[in-house]
Amino acid sequence: MADLPAALRAAVPGLTVLDDPDVMDAYRRDQAPGLPAGRPAAVVMPEDTAQVAAAVATAAAHGAPIVVRGAGSGLAGAANAVDGCLILSTQRMNRILAVDPAERLATVQPGVINADLRQAVAAQGLFYPPDPGSYEMCTVGGNAATNAGGMCCVKYGVTGDYVRGLEAVLADGSVLRTGRRTVKGVAGYDLTHLLVGSEGTLAVITELTLALRPAPMQPRTIIGQFATTAAAGAAVTEVLASAADPSILEIIDATTLRAIEAWQPLGVEADTAAMVIAQSDSARQDEDLRLIEAAFHEATEVIVADDAAESEMLMQARRLAYPALERLGATLLDDVAVPLPELVALIEGVEAIAAGHGMTVGIFGHAGDGNMHPTVVYPHGDAEAEKLAFTVFDEIVALALRLGGTVTGEHGVGLLKRSWLDRELDETARRTQRAVKAALDPAGLLNPGKAIA
Amino acid sequence: MADLPAALRAAVPGLTVLDDPDVMDAYRRDQAPGLPAGRPAAVVMPEDTAQVAAAVATAAAHGAPIVVRGAGSGLAGAANAVDGCLILSTQRMNRILAVDPAERLATVQPGVINADLRQAVAAQGLFYPPDPGSYEMCTVGGNAATNAGGMCCVKYGVTGDYVRGLEAVLADGSVLRTGRRTVKGVAGYDLTHLLVGSEGTLAVITELTLALRPAPMQPRTIIGQFATTAAAGAAVTEVLASAADPSILEIIDATTLRAIEAWQPLGVEADTAAMVIAQSDSARQDEDLRLIEAAFHEATEVIVADDAAESEMLMQARRLAYPALERLGATLLDDVAVPLPELVALIEGVEAIAAGHGMTVGIFGHAGDGNMHPTVVYPHGDAEAEKLAFTVFDEIVALALRLGGTVTGEHGVGLLKRSWLDRELDETARRTQRAVKAALDPAGLLNPGKAIA
Repeated sequence: MADLPAALRAAVPGLTVLDDPDVMDAYRRDQAPGLPAGRPAAVVMPEDTAQVAAAVATAAAHGAPIVVRGAGSGLAGAANAVDGCLILSTQRMNRILAVDPAERLATVQPGVINADLRQAVAAQGLFYPPDPGSYEMCTVGGNAATNAGGMCCVKYGVTGDYVRGLEAVLADGSVLRTGRRTVKGVAGYDLTHLLVGSEGTLAVITELTLALRPAPMQPRTIIGQFATTAAAGAAVTEVLASAADPSILEIIDATTLRAIEAWQPLGVEADTAAMVIAQSDSARQDEDLRLIEAAFHEATEVIVADDAAESEMLMQARRLAYPALERLGATLLDDVAVPLPELVALIEGVEAIAAGHGMTVGIFGHAGDGNMHPTVVYPHGDAEAEKLAFTVFDEIVALALRLGGTVTGEHGVGLLKRSWLDRELDETARRTQRAVKAALDPAGLLNPGKAIA
Repeated sequence: MADLPAALRAAVPGLTVLDDPDVMDAYRRDQAPGLPAGRPAAVVMPEDTAQVAAAVATAAAHGAPIVVRGAGSGLAGAANAVDGCLILSTQRMNRILAVDPAERLATVQPGVINADLRQAVAAQGLFYPPDPGSYEMCTVGGNAATNAGGMCCVKYGVTGDYVRGLEAVLADGSVLRTGRRTVKGVAGYDLTHLLVGSEGTLAVITELTLALRPAPMQPRTIIGQFATTAAAGAAVTEVLASAADPSILEIIDATTLRAIEAWQPLGVEADTAAMVIAQSDSARQDEDLRLIEAAFHEATEVIVADDAAESEMLMQARRLAYPALERLGATLLDDVAVPLPELVALIEGVEAIAAGHGMTVGIFGHAGDGNMHPTVVYPHGDAEAEKLAFTVFDEIVALALRLGGTVTGEHGVGLLKRSWLDRELDETARRTQRAVKAALDPAGLLNPGKAIA
């Protein structure tokens, strides 16, 4: 049998096949730090479904694992190579095939950049809500494969809520179509949402039918500074219980605020324990902002943006949160979610863990979903500190589970959280997941070692 | 080996086991007419998960098929018995285990009546949106097993959108927990939504964790009468494109309106081709109603309810639609969905099919979702007419598929639409569904012959 690159060139006319190790190096891992990445046998860049199907069939015939990657912006190592694998990059499958304003649907290839889709549909007065932090570079195929979240979720839900149908290549190279164009439909099992979030372990997504919404209003921002985490948590709870319909509801803790102030001073009070940032993009924005302001009654300071420019300025604190922490050292970004009543317990618990180890942990995230990103900071190149950082990370995940939460709210399992999945899921759940995996990928070639326990 | 009833009595202490054929007769079928129903070996009424698990394990040991039923209100024959089966009724698993206002979650047994859950959460200022037509009798377990819809879907989505986690008994009697309590979470495959809509073919749902919403405003109703179906369809499109957020957006055709007028005159104009009924339950209800009224600009008459009593009165036409058709004879109720731009083509196409066969077909349904219930009416006890009714029914489903639609929008596949599923899904999709079924239920004991092609 020929080697894999040669076999791919022979079997798939027109397919771009890379096999220079130096060139392939750029395709070996995503943005998760400290996780293993193998050496691929080949990297391919198909341009259409037929090329994907042929490449998958060829790899399968060689017994080569297949690892799909979009932009490689993942944070859990789900796109990391395994030795001898075929890396299938969707970057050249980047065509928006159709945008239908009457049906409010877009049909796209998986390599379309999230921001490009947002812009294309906005031109027709439409809105694609899912907005992962990496939306300017990440792909909608990767978003679907990881069921990506973002700041929009408190109002608009996650990526999966917008995936109405998929085309995907199965492990044997056959092409599966799932879902439908219609708003509702119950014909057969929901294979669409089985594939969404499956991190490339069940099939290779080659086309997405995505639901769109009418364009919202230009959002307006409100921020509140609070002297205690409990007061900030109470404000979040009150906003959610009110008639307001916030399109963003975020929180930033004191550690992160201090990191931001030390870099780009925004005038945050020194004794602020937490900042809550909210937006409304609804037609009754003025009333929403009044209701949110009322819910911020314990705040030491509240600022309501008067216009789009001020709105953008107030969002700066949230945008700077992670980069500000990155300036302090190496970072280990976590992603846990807890039931909303446990949000304050999570933040205070993480602060206690950090203090107990004498470590810096900044906390920010999606307060309205209970989905937080505690970020452990430690000196670059300090192996001892890195080890301690992973200990702190593990204690945070364990805390989230104790609070009735999940080990990953939106970043996915990948390699990073695999052992944690064993603690979140019981043996029957793990066995059922493995049975589904074996049913769709009996040879275990699709992204082996990822996503499931 | 003992017979199944004796084995169940021996193996499951306290379990109610029925085996008198006359008594069991009431548990053999759901409300779909004209479909086969076998003779069960036993009917059991478990009260908790342990009894379900033991009953399933016992039936499995006997090689007996297991058919779960809630209230038996289904319209596709999914709950119909097969010969020698165990009928597992959830009617005694009717406890609301918890309602948590802070998390906006309810935890319930599957036999809880939809209306009972609505009422229980309303007492705490909360709202469980899914509202199938049979909400006063159907169970939330059955709603989840069929991913039931209703009139709320245009604003609030379907049952599956509210199912955050499940407990379910697998075919071998083991207990599976899926999903989570948190708003977001991506830990492992989405087995929750694989079970939702699987019509009892993959597992027996024994507990549901359901998301709730804050209570909406008392809804207000607006109706418009239109001289042509096209004008009514244009009004629906305009409502959906407007800033209004209707909580109901329904349509009733001329045939159905005439049936209603002949029974309980509501003052519908004789030349009305279609009526559109909308509601708003939002905080900006007045503005919503103004926007909807503006979208009704081609209407020959518009009535806006001033208060709750008038709202209820205007909803009467929609409530009477199916009973009014039932007064005319035997009925064959269909359930198809098409892309929204094809709504008028569907209605006019059904009218042409009806005229071509000289048959009466009333059309009503969820205009905002493109989900229609064309209802073929024929004389009771007329075998020739019944045969023709099934021909008309088939032509309607074929039309929906030609228009890019689905063979079932919300009623499910059951027995009724199994052959149609073969036409909606291609061979790869059918093969994948069967692989998933075999992975979870290798012996094929759970509701055999239903739901998948």
